[in-house]
Amino acid sequence: MRHTILVLVENKFGVLARVAGLFSARGYNIDSLTVGETEDPMVSRMTIVVKGDDRVLDQVKKQLNKLIDIITVRDLKNDDHIDRELMLFKVGFNQKNKAQLANSIKKSGGLILHTSPKSFLVQMVGPYGKIEALLKNMSEYGIKDLTRTGRVAITKD
Amino acid sequence: MRHTILVLVENKFGVLARVAGLFSARGYNIDSLTVGETEDPMVSRMTIVVKGDDRVLDQVKKQLNKLIDIITVRDLKNDDHIDRELMLFKVGFNQKNKAQLANSIKKSGGLILHTSPKSFLVQMVGPYGKIEALLKNMSEYGIKDLTRTGRVAITKD
Repeated sequence: MRHTILVLVENKFGVLARVAGLFSARGYNIDSLTVGETEDPMVSRMTIVVKGDDRVLDQVKKQLNKLIDIITVRDLKNDDHIDRELMLFKVGFNQKNKAQLANSIKKSGGLILHTSPKSFLVQMVGPYGKIEALLKNMSEYGIKDLTRTGRVAITKD
Repeated sequence: MRHTILVLVENKFGVLARVAGLFSARGYNIDSLTVGETEDPMVSRMTIVVKGDDRVLDQVKKQLNKLIDIITVRDLKNDDHIDRELMLFKVGFNQKNKAQLANSIKKSGGLILHTSPKSFLVQMVGPYGKIEALLKNMSEYGIKDLTRTGRVAITKD
């Protein structure tokens, strides 16, 4: 089961290392993790996506709550929220399939940011399913230098 | 000075904790950090943005290169690259300023994903400067629940 956890932390040295260490000590591998600024310069927000069963995850949440500098921990799995991810990658083309590839990128919701002699640099933003669908459509071409932000999530109200 | 560092790491337990610990031990605060999948399921890619002078950053890069599970470390500050960040947030309105706010979001390149009785849920993707410009335009309204992915970067060729 995938869990999306929001963690608000005070913006201090070493908080990220302690949170990452906690997940690591439990033997979890983190699917995706983002740390970024919030509207408050003193506060950072982490969005962590992990796989695991409910029992062990409850323990991790309790441990997170015990760490100082952690402000709130929230498991979004049952909440009404929107999540998005950003992906950048390059995909190769030849003269024969260039137009078809450009069309496929556009149809999947991707945006071509830059065109080199042999590849497009593509930006894609969307929920997990749409990102995966674009990747599937691109799999017959050569994908290079793919980078994803991991998901960020926000409650609807 | 801001440095954007790309780190390719093997997708194993504890790598993130060690990388985060390294920056923390040096007394750096990380401006933004993203960890996400790549085109290779065994490899994760971190994009780290830190402030610091060149001398100390060189030492951190050397330390990163010594850690096992680290595949490559690259400082992008002088390279020809594109960077993007994703931001989600809610911004409040009243009957009087609703249309004006919607217009300002659109002009700045933001996308309204959801409308509640008193707020818009907005998605914004762009380089650092455009993200900051949108935030500045929104500052007269009430921003809530802002979340940013941190930057991801990709070389142009």
